[in-house]
Amino acid sequence: MSVPKYSKASRPCLIVGSVAIDRVATPFAQSDNILGGAASYASIAASYFAPTRIVGAVGGDFPKPFLKRFSKHGIDTTGLQIEREGKTFFWSGKYHENFAGRDTLEIQLNVFEKFSPTLPALYRETPYVMLGAIQPALQHHVVDQLKGKNAFILADTFDLWIKTTREDLDRLLPRIDLFVINEDESKLLTGETNLILAGRKLRKMGPRMVVLKKGEHGSLLFHPEGFFAIPAYPVTKFVDPTGAGDSYAGALIGYLASVNRTDLAALKKAVAYATACASLTVESFSVNRLSSGGRATVNARYKELEQMTRF
Amino acid sequence: MSVPKYSKASRPCLIVGSVAIDRVATPFAQSDNILGGAASYASIAASYFAPTRIVGAVGGDFPKPFLKRFSKHGIDTTGLQIEREGKTFFWSGKYHENFAGRDTLEIQLNVFEKFSPTLPALYRETPYVMLGAIQPALQHHVVDQLKGKNAFILADTFDLWIKTTREDLDRLLPRIDLFVINEDESKLLTGETNLILAGRKLRKMGPRMVVLKKGEHGSLLFHPEGFFAIPAYPVTKFVDPTGAGDSYAGALIGYLASVNRTDLAALKKAVAYATACASLTVESFSVNRLSSGGRATVNARYKELEQMTRF
Repeated sequence: MSVPKYSKASRPCLIVGSVAIDRVATPFAQSDNILGGAASYASIAASYFAPTRIVGAVGGDFPKPFLKRFSKHGIDTTGLQIEREGKTFFWSGKYHENFAGRDTLEIQLNVFEKFSPTLPALYRETPYVMLGAIQPALQHHVVDQLKGKNAFILADTFDLWIKTTREDLDRLLPRIDLFVINEDESKLLTGETNLILAGRKLRKMGPRMVVLKKGEHGSLLFHPEGFFAIPAYPVTKFVDPTGAGDSYAGALIGYLASVNRTDLAALKKAVAYATACASLTVESFSVNRLSSGGRATVNARYKELEQMTRF
Repeated sequence: MSVPKYSKASRPCLIVGSVAIDRVATPFAQSDNILGGAASYASIAASYFAPTRIVGAVGGDFPKPFLKRFSKHGIDTTGLQIEREGKTFFWSGKYHENFAGRDTLEIQLNVFEKFSPTLPALYRETPYVMLGAIQPALQHHVVDQLKGKNAFILADTFDLWIKTTREDLDRLLPRIDLFVINEDESKLLTGETNLILAGRKLRKMGPRMVVLKKGEHGSLLFHPEGFFAIPAYPVTKFVDPTGAGDSYAGALIGYLASVNRTDLAALKKAVAYATACASLTVESFSVNRLSSGGRATVNARYKELEQMTRF
């Protein structure tokens, strides 16, 4: 694919998070030495919609083809800290039968251990920002660097942070606009098993909007103007779920940046595009299918989602 | 409510299944001596849309107010076998925490033990028929009595029949038009964990159409003309799930009878009305909320579903 062209209304978006080298085993196959990390998936998904900036850290071992993948998508990597002496964050995971959960087999934090998301001066006025599921303290650090109070901030999280750094997370929620969380994490964070009540409770914790992701069962949007629910795109070639949620969140922030709107109608469309991008991600290891699919495939799935939900 | 009035296009529908007296315990409350049984829920839901006939069996102990409930809904009970000497089928169940499964505490089959669904002569030409989850042999017996081959037949089933009378069930599937099944049953019957593949596989087993119910995650429709997915109605006052699936199926067949069409557009709307009716059922014990809600509430929820899914 060539570097995408964006509409005039498009505003830039910023993705902050992990960039990794992964080894993934599923019940059916495995793949080694592949591009991983939340910011990788999210920035490629976002790049379909709006000019995308990435902040993360990699080591001197980070493969050139991975950098090339970012530039093919027109992603601005000025904020990607390359530590020549260090090694890239490594994650190895194994999915259980039927993809019901996964085990982390190995983690080498490497350069990610001391990662501090420092925004290049130019990035500090980015109007649409996604905070990947890094430690809440680091998410705060990003928000602190944003100039003015006008950026629209999406944050993701992770069950580990809910369990270990709950206070930081609680303080973060009122500082963001859109909280993206999965079903299990929402139950953990709110103590509420009814997802509708959980979503409402999360909004009361600070963010104006909440998106609750349910994997193969789709997702729910809690917005000040109303509620929205969308099924998952019907995937039949399910290869690897890694990065699905990151692709989802990246497409979401990217679409909002592309229309520069955050009303309910815009959020609904953003959630549909997010659903389309996540469905591509799970059809291959790493970002392969998400990246090769191209905007045309994303658009086709969006249209299909429209048809399969309208009555 | 008064006996409903139906549009001129409406055709009658027939509901065959259990009529019971239930005792239900949930993690929050319990209720005893209440109207239960698949045919009770289904016929009340169907009655919102089309003239509804019921076939089932009860004993001399069947409370008058329960019969009155049927007649208030304009349900034709000519086919309800009342065995003065016998006792009504009794079911007692207890739901686990968070409604994750349930235990049957007691079953007294009573008149249901020798129940044979004999259709009154007038019922044999009913154009829309729902076979509740009774034994497949009895479902066959109903189909055998239908005159001509033009009736549209919906069938439900139950994990027990999949495990114990699989052959009868396999022979039934090619005889019906629409198979309604829940997520776990679909996995059990097809051995397929991907619900999209499971739905397609079920269609290959005979029925032209399949609806796969996922409880709080909504439902999926597999139709020769295309695929459709709808979320559940966002229920926050969840009291008792008993009968939700039966109400769903009853509304489905009732709506199809009311428009006398079975194309994809009609099925989508039927599934949305089914979703609305099921959401009422879970908000109370027994048929109370489903019955008291009335068509106006069903319509309001249908409209809400339209708004919360359109983008």
